[in-house]
Amino acid sequence: MKIIDYKRSELFMPYGYTGKILRIDLSNNRIWIDKHDELWYRTYMGGGCIGAWYMLKEMKKGIDPLTPGNMLIFSLSPIVGAPVPTTGRVCISCKSPLTNAFGESQMGGYFGPELKFAGWDAVVVEGKAKKPVYIWIKDDKIEIRDASNIWGKSIGESQDIIQSELEDSRIRVANIGPAGEKLVRFACVINNKKNACGRTGIGAVMGSKNLKAIAVRGSGNFNAKDLSSLREKAKWFNKNFMNNPSDRSLNLNGTADIIDDMNERGMLPTRNFKKGYFESASMITGEKMKETILIKNEGCYACPVRCKRIVATNEEWKVDPSYGGPEYETIGAFGSNCEVSDLAAIAKANEICNRYGMDTISSGVCISFAMECFEKGIITVQDVNGLDLKWGNAKAMVKLTEMIGNREGFGDILAEGTKRAAEKIGKDSQQYAMQVKGQELPLHEPRLKVNVGIGYALSELGADHTRVEHDTDFDLYAPEIFIEQAKTLGLLERLPNDQIIEVKVRQYYYLQHHFSMLDTLCCCFYGFAPVRAYTMTDLVEIVNAVTGWETSLWELMKLGERRWNMTKIFNLREGIGVKDDWLPERFFTSLENGVAKGKALDKEEFKNALKLFYEMANWEPDTTIPRRAKLIELDLKWLADLWLEWVDKK
Amino acid sequence: MKIIDYKRSELFMPYGYTGKILRIDLSNNRIWIDKHDELWYRTYMGGGCIGAWYMLKEMKKGIDPLTPGNMLIFSLSPIVGAPVPTTGRVCISCKSPLTNAFGESQMGGYFGPELKFAGWDAVVVEGKAKKPVYIWIKDDKIEIRDASNIWGKSIGESQDIIQSELEDSRIRVANIGPAGEKLVRFACVINNKKNACGRTGIGAVMGSKNLKAIAVRGSGNFNAKDLSSLREKAKWFNKNFMNNPSDRSLNLNGTADIIDDMNERGMLPTRNFKKGYFESASMITGEKMKETILIKNEGCYACPVRCKRIVATNEEWKVDPSYGGPEYETIGAFGSNCEVSDLAAIAKANEICNRYGMDTISSGVCISFAMECFEKGIITVQDVNGLDLKWGNAKAMVKLTEMIGNREGFGDILAEGTKRAAEKIGKDSQQYAMQVKGQELPLHEPRLKVNVGIGYALSELGADHTRVEHDTDFDLYAPEIFIEQAKTLGLLERLPNDQIIEVKVRQYYYLQHHFSMLDTLCCCFYGFAPVRAYTMTDLVEIVNAVTGWETSLWELMKLGERRWNMTKIFNLREGIGVKDDWLPERFFTSLENGVAKGKALDKEEFKNALKLFYEMANWEPDTTIPRRAKLIELDLKWLADLWLEWVDKK
Repeated sequence: MKIIDYKRSELFMPYGYTGKILRIDLSNNRIWIDKHDELWYRTYMGGGCIGAWYMLKEMKKGIDPLTPGNMLIFSLSPIVGAPVPTTGRVCISCKSPLTNAFGESQMGGYFGPELKFAGWDAVVVEGKAKKPVYIWIKDDKIEIRDASNIWGKSIGESQDIIQSELEDSRIRVANIGPAGEKLVRFACVINNKKNACGRTGIGAVMGSKNLKAIAVRGSGNFNAKDLSSLREKAKWFNKNFMNNPSDRSLNLNGTADIIDDMNERGMLPTRNFKKGYFESASMITGEKMKETILIKNEGCYACPVRCKRIVATNEEWKVDPSYGGPEYETIGAFGSNCEVSDLAAIAKANEICNRYGMDTISSGVCISFAMECFEKGIITVQDVNGLDLKWGNAKAMVKLTEMIGNREGFGDILAEGTKRAAEKIGKDSQQYAMQVKGQELPLHEPRLKVNVGIGYALSELGADHTRVEHDTDFDLYAPEIFIEQAKTLGLLERLPNDQIIEVKVRQYYYLQHHFSMLDTLCCCFYGFAPVRAYTMTDLVEIVNAVTGWETSLWELMKLGERRWNMTKIFNLREGIGVKDDWLPERFFTSLENGVAKGKALDKEEFKNALKLFYEMANWEPDTTIPRRAKLIELDLKWLADLWLEWVDKK
Repeated sequence: MKIIDYKRSELFMPYGYTGKILRIDLSNNRIWIDKHDELWYRTYMGGGCIGAWYMLKEMKKGIDPLTPGNMLIFSLSPIVGAPVPTTGRVCISCKSPLTNAFGESQMGGYFGPELKFAGWDAVVVEGKAKKPVYIWIKDDKIEIRDASNIWGKSIGESQDIIQSELEDSRIRVANIGPAGEKLVRFACVINNKKNACGRTGIGAVMGSKNLKAIAVRGSGNFNAKDLSSLREKAKWFNKNFMNNPSDRSLNLNGTADIIDDMNERGMLPTRNFKKGYFESASMITGEKMKETILIKNEGCYACPVRCKRIVATNEEWKVDPSYGGPEYETIGAFGSNCEVSDLAAIAKANEICNRYGMDTISSGVCISFAMECFEKGIITVQDVNGLDLKWGNAKAMVKLTEMIGNREGFGDILAEGTKRAAEKIGKDSQQYAMQVKGQELPLHEPRLKVNVGIGYALSELGADHTRVEHDTDFDLYAPEIFIEQAKTLGLLERLPNDQIIEVKVRQYYYLQHHFSMLDTLCCCFYGFAPVRAYTMTDLVEIVNAVTGWETSLWELMKLGERRWNMTKIFNLREGIGVKDDWLPERFFTSLENGVAKGKALDKEEFKNALKLFYEMANWEPDTTIPRRAKLIELDLKWLADLWLEWVDKK
């Protein structure tokens, strides 16, 4: 293996935090290591910041995301693998085949920590293997292995085969299923059969590289400057998370705990986002799941919350428990948004998504899109291979999900995502495509959660609820906790969730730094975001205990801001810009039922909010190009210079 | 007393941190109390943020600073009076008679804590008393008392008389001397006879109100949510400050400890900033002071550093020890910058300044200005009342200092500050006026400390070294400490002090937030700035221990940024803008001696640095008007709205 050093500057760096990054070029069977200095690690730390760094430095402009020139970057952060709850996610970045923009998704489970124990901070994959392969990482030993025998196999089967082939059931596998192989544009990468990097079509990129899986086993320990203070943090969390209303409800009822509340507030996306109230919502709640199909809880590395559901059904759907149970988003997408009230059918759709390896949000919203097109007569029974796509038809919903995974019949069209599907279908069907930048909306109602709506429009990833998550939760669960933690960010006032006002944009702006910071550090927001168990101070202390640094919330918030500015520049280079920051027309029309019936976003107000955000971000408001001074302020002078080069070449 | 409530919004505020602000209208003998909610205290906290809030809300535009419409705002912060070192300063704000811009200065000593123990967070004085008065604050009991018997008296005498009249030698007195009464434009307010709010002419404003002094005695305790953790912080500091190279040298040799180093580096301002090397520097160092005239150290409330010098001389100058000894700035101004090497004479000039109550920096730089005019033949012996103003003439220097305090002869002209004096003198003398926005330069060489130079040009207060203090210190004393603490702010690289480069502006920008934060919290930078004993984390923890809040360095840095944006808007309203952000021509010409001989700032580079800063600050770069989005981001929507009103009225 060749070792390449990246040095930004000679500088005084007394902490000695270092790492190494594994590089693999599948086209040429090359494996090498990138060594960066501590300054680099401290500047970019992890997650999408590392992903964006490589994509901006090395990826050619304008490539088709499904060609070998795309990169697939698995990245951790210094705190991934620390023996504390909710800091063990892995991030995958690439150019998205769904949006043609920056693609990124994160997953929990055990893969991230295992990669860390093997000694790696990131794995950067590029090129395309001549035939199906998987990568086997055993500490320093790296193999590119033949995967012909598992190509075509489901997520579960292929994981099992790899573990048995390598004779170690504790190997962690991040793999794609048939959906990824067939380049379903919202295919995902899954580890542990149920923890998914669901969004932006990362699985299709992995498929396009003929890469079935990355398997990893590490024998190293987690290195920390102050392990005992990490243990204290974990101890505190394990003892106290059940006192936190939010983490408690996650433990008891999973993420679907909020369904009833959402419905009562008229913000449960129903009938492809036309409505905010679903009459049968009580049939699909987290509590109902507990009473019916739940068999146990599971969790991620070092986490006591155990919010993951394991479900089984003996009835017609025969759900395989090894694929887990449906999350809130999944239930919203396949359930209320398709007006399906059969929880077992929803669990089946979830199982299919995990088996084929595809995103439950995009899959479900593709189906509600199809149902609405069907209702409007834009597509007919013939178009959809004989399915009766009427609202609430659980059987048709489950069948169509599987057809997407197989790219079979009408499923092949939906496998392109709603934006491309609408282009193919034509006849104004585009108005029923609930997507931004090509990615389908998560199940949060922008008319009532204004911050989330602004986030949908602005996110570099396309519609994405992790940009500013769940602003309504602040009210729903624990305002007194929110207010305490949000104040740490300088957000001193509780603001209405459903009104676009100038000071709301300020709240959005700070929260966006914050959520981006959590993502860059590969943290689960259920541990750290406002309303959660840990405080922001805990996060800073965890980073310091691991690295020996003396960082601060200032530096970490700037890290978050750095990430979204880097991804923004990537998008601008790829031609995704201000024109793409908008919501589907539907959200400027009235909600059709529920307590918030009649509620609509005001177009002018929404536009003004975006403009105000651009100015706040120190971007040129007409073009959304980050001003040179902003990039330099974020320690991204090299990127400011690169941008000038790119502009010159135009 | 009438009580007026300011409420921004009804909000959830569980900490219960509150305070009260004393209002006094001297014109109408009115006394009342402002009660603000906790949100207000958390948003503005203290210092110049409180000062600017009142000045922006209540002061009429365009007033002459020496008329009753000016306000004089003594403000503390939540942590003033806490039983920890270096958090006990008091801030005074007003419209400056020296610059016509925002005026502000801070002083240590004991006045701030005493005001806090009396129950007040700020005292806002407006109007003008019909005859000389002083204000007597005994807890809740407020009196406006006759001061005819002390008008005309020195700082020392008037303090003694007040204490004896009120029969309590522990009363703390902040007062003006004859210079303030005579409206010397750089007159100061002093407490404890030697702790001065030196800059921007606050003493003249106090004089213009016929207000001789504020005397205060408080019988309350300091309230803190977690007193024991404050005690821990103090214990740690008391035990460890001598291990910190910077605080140790401050203790041993006072602020003048740096003279030798500065000289060797060619950056000791000499001969009115023409030179960077003073041949006789070794005669005026902190060490020389210790060997000769020093009789003891003194310090401020709760502080073990005791950097204040107490000096006495029996020779011709007969320095009164009760006025303390000269600081670095004072020695630079009266010493090297006038090429005076007689330390006792410098100590005498310092004593005169404290006795008359005027700023040692402006006084000294006025004299070096006069000496250069004299050298160039622009003014003659006749013009200066027979003084032989040649470089290095200690006697003439001391005499002229006293003449300024008395506004006697040529002293009357210099009492207007170098900018106005040069206008009176004419004949191109303006080129020798080392001032920005009308305020004289502190004794730091912009050609070699680029950040300080940028700070001189940009500071809303006029030339001011507290905007970004001493960037060279990072190298001088303790790079390993600097790098550790600066990284907390996200400054990861050591940059050359003497080069204008883009990333240097980034460093300046963050450090400016930082120093402004320290000022807003009324902290002494010798405890907290990079290279100092406490870390930034300590500061956050101290604020939290006092208030019960869970603040962060993010919120506090934004507080600092809020302050300089508020003062910027004040200046813009008063017509002080982009045209006033510049250095004297001299600094674009070569240093004439020392190791850095030949060094000059590049005009184009300097201009570009300012432009880059404006963009970084999210101000319109051509006008330096903060963009509306920036003000809203800083939680200053009310100010953004006010600004629009003001613009409309134009």
